[in-house]
Amino acid sequence: MVKVGVIGASGYSGLELMRLLARHPEVELTAVTSREHDGRPVGAVFPALAGIVNLAYTWPDPDKLAAAVDLVFVALPHQAAMAVVPTFIAAGRRVVDLSADFRFRDRAVYEAYYQAHSAPELLGEAVYGLPELHREAIRAARLVGNPGCYPTSVILGWAPLLRAGLLDLDSLIADCKSGVSGAGRGLSLSTLYCEVNDGFRAYKVAEHRHTPEMEQELGGLAGAPVTISFTPHLVPMSRGILATLYGRLSRPAAAADLQDLYADFYRGESFVRLCAPGALPSTIHVRGSNYCDLAVRLDRRTGRVIVLSAIDNLTRGAAGQAVANMNLMLGVPETLGLEVVPFLP
Amino acid sequence: MVKVGVIGASGYSGLELMRLLARHPEVELTAVTSREHDGRPVGAVFPALAGIVNLAYTWPDPDKLAAAVDLVFVALPHQAAMAVVPTFIAAGRRVVDLSADFRFRDRAVYEAYYQAHSAPELLGEAVYGLPELHREAIRAARLVGNPGCYPTSVILGWAPLLRAGLLDLDSLIADCKSGVSGAGRGLSLSTLYCEVNDGFRAYKVAEHRHTPEMEQELGGLAGAPVTISFTPHLVPMSRGILATLYGRLSRPAAAADLQDLYADFYRGESFVRLCAPGALPSTIHVRGSNYCDLAVRLDRRTGRVIVLSAIDNLTRGAAGQAVANMNLMLGVPETLGLEVVPFLP
Amino acid sequence: MVKVGVIGASGYSGLELMRLLARHPEVELTAVTSREHDGRPVGAVFPALAGIVNLAYTWPDPDKLAAAVDLVFVALPHQAAMAVVPTFIAAGRRVVDLSADFRFRDRAVYEAYYQAHSAPELLGEAVYGLPELHREAIRAARLVGNPGCYPTSVILGWAPLLRAGLLDLDSLIADCKSGVSGAGRGLSLSTLYCEVNDGFRAYKVAEHRHTPEMEQELGGLAGAPVTISFTPHLVPMSRGILATLYGRLSRPAAAADLQDLYADFYRGESFVRLCAPGALPSTIHVRGSNYCDLAVRLDRRTGRVIVLSAIDNLTRGAAGQAVANMNLMLGVPETLGLEVVPFLP
Amino acid sequence: MVKVGVIGASGYSGLELMRLLARHPEVELTAVTSREHDGRPVGAVFPALAGIVNLAYTWPDPDKLAAAVDLVFVALPHQAAMAVVPTFIAAGRRVVDLSADFRFRDRAVYEAYYQAHSAPELLGEAVYGLPELHREAIRAARLVGNPGCYPTSVILGWAPLLRAGLLDLDSLIADCKSGVSGAGRGLSLSTLYCEVNDGFRAYKVAEHRHTPEMEQELGGLAGAPVTISFTPHLVPMSRGILATLYGRLSRPAAAADLQDLYADFYRGESFVRLCAPGALPSTIHVRGSNYCDLAVRLDRRTGRVIVLSAIDNLTRGAAGQAVANMNLMLGVPETLGLEVVPFLP
Repeated sequence: MVKVGVIGASGYSGLELMRLLARHPEVELTAVTSREHDGRPVGAVFPALAGIVNLAYTWPDPDKLAAAVDLVFVALPHQAAMAVVPTFIAAGRRVVDLSADFRFRDRAVYEAYYQAHSAPELLGEAVYGLPELHREAIRAARLVGNPGCYPTSVILGWAPLLRAGLLDLDSLIADCKSGVSGAGRGLSLSTLYCEVNDGFRAYKVAEHRHTPEMEQELGGLAGAPVTISFTPHLVPMSRGILATLYGRLSRPAAAADLQDLYADFYRGESFVRLCAPGALPSTIHVRGSNYCDLAVRLDRRTGRVIVLSAIDNLTRGAAGQAVANMNLMLGVPETLGLEVVPFLP
Repeated sequence: MVKVGVIGASGYSGLELMRLLARHPEVELTAVTSREHDGRPVGAVFPALAGIVNLAYTWPDPDKLAAAVDLVFVALPHQAAMAVVPTFIAAGRRVVDLSADFRFRDRAVYEAYYQAHSAPELLGEAVYGLPELHREAIRAARLVGNPGCYPTSVILGWAPLLRAGLLDLDSLIADCKSGVSGAGRGLSLSTLYCEVNDGFRAYKVAEHRHTPEMEQELGGLAGAPVTISFTPHLVPMSRGILATLYGRLSRPAAAADLQDLYADFYRGESFVRLCAPGALPSTIHVRGSNYCDLAVRLDRRTGRVIVLSAIDNLTRGAAGQAVANMNLMLGVPETLGLEVVPFLP
Repeated sequence: MVKVGVIGASGYSGLELMRLLARHPEVELTAVTSREHDGRPVGAVFPALAGIVNLAYTWPDPDKLAAAVDLVFVALPHQAAMAVVPTFIAAGRRVVDLSADFRFRDRAVYEAYYQAHSAPELLGEAVYGLPELHREAIRAARLVGNPGCYPTSVILGWAPLLRAGLLDLDSLIADCKSGVSGAGRGLSLSTLYCEVNDGFRAYKVAEHRHTPEMEQELGGLAGAPVTISFTPHLVPMSRGILATLYGRLSRPAAAADLQDLYADFYRGESFVRLCAPGALPSTIHVRGSNYCDLAVRLDRRTGRVIVLSAIDNLTRGAAGQAVANMNLMLGVPETLGLEVVPFLP
Repeated sequence: MVKVGVIGASGYSGLELMRLLARHPEVELTAVTSREHDGRPVGAVFPALAGIVNLAYTWPDPDKLAAAVDLVFVALPHQAAMAVVPTFIAAGRRVVDLSADFRFRDRAVYEAYYQAHSAPELLGEAVYGLPELHREAIRAARLVGNPGCYPTSVILGWAPLLRAGLLDLDSLIADCKSGVSGAGRGLSLSTLYCEVNDGFRAYKVAEHRHTPEMEQELGGLAGAPVTISFTPHLVPMSRGILATLYGRLSRPAAAADLQDLYADFYRGESFVRLCAPGALPSTIHVRGSNYCDLAVRLDRRTGRVIVLSAIDNLTRGAAGQAVANMNLMLGVPETLGLEVVPFLP
């Protein structure tokens, strides 16, 4: 059994990592850290895990943790993540980092949207952990920058069209909707039940930090710089992201061609499901799983292609994808521990 | 007191009409009809209205109803509405029709999206009941076609920009999100609690019948034909619509200019509130009221204007707007009976 | 117009008071206070109220406030309330206090469950503000202790049976369920959306501080000490309380007798609605209103009477009842400003 | 691999059975039936299961099904179930029936609450499928009557106290709250999203058919007839039951004694978790799992014991318990295929 640890395991991503790792057949979860809950049993903090994760939280000491595990998941906020990752790498441990700190190839872009980077020497080797695009590099990586939730839904949604050169690159709009867990487990007026329930709103219009992350990967697919409009919205539900993606066709194509394009692009992928023509994805059909469900529609009246992409923001958008990346790094089947059936109703 | 009736008062729009009319100081609600509930007290069907609406449902007999009221609200499905409206008009009664049957100036457009029109002779005089655009015509109208919920949010959102000629007309995308009451009170698997709760999805992508209705009014504002992409989505909440509207500027403009444009366009309007710069609307802030809350944002990176428009689909998107139209037709203040404070939390 | 103020108007009860007072025909809301929001317009803090409550928050200075208003609503936490109430009383202002500080006739009971009382000299004259029980005293009161939300639902539910001496006093169990707004608008992990959504739980079993408040009034109705079991639960909804009340009949009675008893007891009451035999109340039927909907059922197999009592915790359970008390104190109709139609769906 | 089938697999219990059986390591799901969906792939009816359950629905033909499988789950409504079960038994197939038809030892009780029994000859051998009470009998059974959802939560909650003789048998009240999936997937006004959302109500007060089922098992535990009051309520959530159980101690006991009693009674049980003193269960902590979480509290003021019992109505209350019963019947570990981690948030 491979020994793994989670640093920063008191938030929703950490909880989801524990949910998945607790039942993984090839790894043993041996350490979870939390400053706030240091010393408390996991089952006392999350009664859902009582009798399942029989560990107590420890204080996040990177040196100790590096000595105890083979691979570590870093589920800390950005900035805090890059403060600890070099310790693990130096100790020869492999790392899947769920923050934004190692997702960018261009340090300047990171620093324009976040802050000064304290471990820029690792940016060159960090791999963007989207298996469908970078599977081979992930297998060999010491350090994986696990993608953001919105970028995962958007990049998977547009990848086939962009690689085929079928989209006008200045026509791209990503209108995305997320459940509330994406905002984390910290105390905030805006995520109180009564502030969210039975309401719907946009936030950070044209200024969300996931924009450059998307543009990096979309540009790589297109082979040219891409600038998009991205609007996030908050949905009164706990989990799930639906991305509605608009783009204008750069040359004529039939609806059936688009369907075939997607079927070909994702043939053999375990975690992408293409909806049958006429069907549309729903976040509820992927809830709790690592699936990304996709549909592609042609709007003949306007010449636009509209792609719908649904994921669970905590699973495919965070912990599930992190486990898939770990599987690739360990050389075990990518789906191991991720055979969770979507949870419905 | 003006006597009014509601034909088709067993659905959510009918319920909302009763909620508003029951407290209206200048009208008396004297008749409500329902085939299903014929003879039952309203308070037995909707216990919320017990002791408030002290009427029993009657069978929908247009002749009888025309004899009993001065003005009638028709809250029937399309096709059923146009079957009864001519009777009221012939009897000299004024009509606010909440269906799609009298919203279109061009019969061919209606028939392309719905079915053959059985009362085309009335299309010429029917007025599209959006007070901010057609207030004077509404005052004089015998027949008002009350706007659809999505069109209300979209047209109010884009009106200032289109009238100012500031948008590329082939760049318009309306990504809209609605609460479940928009789907009505009929039995349907897709609106069962467990099918909706904690999920989010799009539906009728690029094929919803509100599209030509929007295009008629948007074209009127622009002075030229307009073709848009419109995508509706279902939000797990009972009420509310948020429209996220994308368009490319046809000539450069500053964010402050756009804010001023909106402030000027809606100056003096009782039911449109412009968010302060930096603020964004939420459906929860207009819930139960006739307000449309708007924000306009400039995305400098892409040259797009993004407008956010929030309404309550049952109030501003149906019954509230119908009451405002009635007020105009009766020559009383437009806000009468609509001073409802948004309901929060 | 009578000038009124709300001290502590940044929470949900304060918001609900503003919602109701903004449309009250006989009062003018002239001052609202908040330490946190001092100087900010109400419409900036609660965009729902933009254009409706055109006031800015002020710092809570009891002397200034006493000089500016005729009557004040105190919507502060217990302990903070009794620190300011004497100032208003001394200045000759009338007070409706929404905290627990002036609900108890017996100082020792208050101090056993809360803390030392800092204004015990006012306990003797403070009136428990449940109009159905204490209407005449409220009319004359300088100081009204507005009932708690759970006690309102429970006391109204059992009052007819207790006054009739029909219940075994040692058999009483109140199993109550509340929406989340009852927990207030403060930051708390337990009221975050993702912690509440799609879950249900009890809390403070056999130890909630509303217990002695209920027992005081229930004992008054019974003419003898009453000890009950009270269990509160948290429902994933914003508003509403349903109380399920169990008691054993002290002497045989028929179901129809019980129905008549309730109809007689509440005859003429504007804000109590008795469900027809066979019907049951739902919180959604009273949402946003001052109604208490009641049903009484006889369980013949066990000899128990089961009463169902539904209120809106923010309206009847707090701000609506406070406005009704103000109306009584001012000598205007009890229903003024409270003709709000329950908000559904 | 043992071949299993599900007859009636289009409802929520059938869906949950498919979710669990699809990943069960010792069985192969080989047939699922539905009249409505005959011939359609499961993944077309439930897109959540696309790529996971690769079967098409077949018409429910008991003879054919009996020939194809070793064990069958009957997930039909009562009355329909007993029409097909004898065919499977006669063919030598073992059956787990999720309806009420084979839960009663006394035919007269069944017939008083349901209808005439068409297969009374099987009542004698059918075993009530609550493993904690009847594990050995289940192992040997040909036919298991899988418990109702409410009875599972109530019986597990009271079992230790009743077996210890610690409760006054005429003092028992079960106040239970269930998510909406308990009402099934059929079309019904009362389970539409807008009718349920943000509301709470009781239903079938003192007349629900789960009452005699509870009394049968509670009486068995007590060694004497038991009559209870049972009140079900509808919670706006998809899944989960919380039972709040009241009873008076028949002799004095300390809180610590009660805690020990429960710990002893359920020692070694895989699917019952006793909350630590001071903690209370929540439905969200058992969601999607086969756990029953319990807490026991002493109300010293009244001498009552209050037990809180939380289950997932579709897993422990239906499909999960059915799979546990199957495991026992097959002689494999009871937990096989049920190691699902509770799904949170």
